[in-house]
Amino acid sequence: MKPKISLITLGVGSIAKSLKFYRDGLGFCPHNYKEGSQMVMFEMEGSWLGLYPKNELAKDVGVSGDGKGFSGITLAHNVKSEEEVDEVVELAIKSGAKLVKKPQKVFWGGYSGYFADPDGYLWEVAYNPLTDLS
Amino acid sequence: MKPKISLITLGVGSIAKSLKFYRDGLGFCPHNYKEGSQMVMFEMEGSWLGLYPKNELAKDVGVSGDGKGFSGITLAHNVKSEEEVDEVVELAIKSGAKLVKKPQKVFWGGYSGYFADPDGYLWEVAYNPLTDLS
Repeated sequence: MKPKISLITLGVGSIAKSLKFYRDGLGFCPHNYKEGSQMVMFEMEGSWLGLYPKNELAKDVGVSGDGKGFSGITLAHNVKSEEEVDEVVELAIKSGAKLVKKPQKVFWGGYSGYFADPDGYLWEVAYNPLTDLS
Repeated sequence: MKPKISLITLGVGSIAKSLKFYRDGLGFCPHNYKEGSQMVMFEMEGSWLGLYPKNELAKDVGVSGDGKGFSGITLAHNVKSEEEVDEVVELAIKSGAKLVKKPQKVFWGGYSGYFADPDGYLWEVAYNPLTDLS
């Protein structure tokens, strides 16, 4: 098994709301998206991001769709400077995200903040001066 | 904001158990890992995978660490054939994963199965004959 995450799928409450946020707000471009389709795929640099109704995703896995609280997973978008962290977090908020942690210097030597997407999924926006993941 | 997920971090119950699964089982190679450290980073093809104690991750975000049920997120590892799906799922199970959905033909035209890692995070292993994400 090669070390690869091909696709990260977020189970969402409303495809329309998620498109508004990810496509119209953050500017991600859907791949072959047909208006009205319940599956959205974004080709990201190095991986793909999928959006799918949460109850359908649970059905696909074969588990109950109930879940609450902290998902236990965070996604990070790394950039090349502290200023860029601020800019991306501002863009996300302008696009409808909720600010969860104001960008700040953090204990591991970097600078980062968190926002929650329309379904509460947590994105960290980070500048890491030690290891460039951007 | 460029379309990129730099890092996916899983909040785990035990770093030792997760290392046993991801490093010793699946064969992912930690990046600069110091034995005993509570943060593990795997450089994946196109992104990074991080493991961090779940309560510490919640603290870093600034949210309560409580959460149960379906996380709403799935990670997918795509491969080039149905046989390879079976092989990867078998490897995961031999490494301690729980089989959640036996690999099978699925409605969208592909072949896929799901396993749960030691903390219950869901990985799909998929062959997609329409779009090669492998």
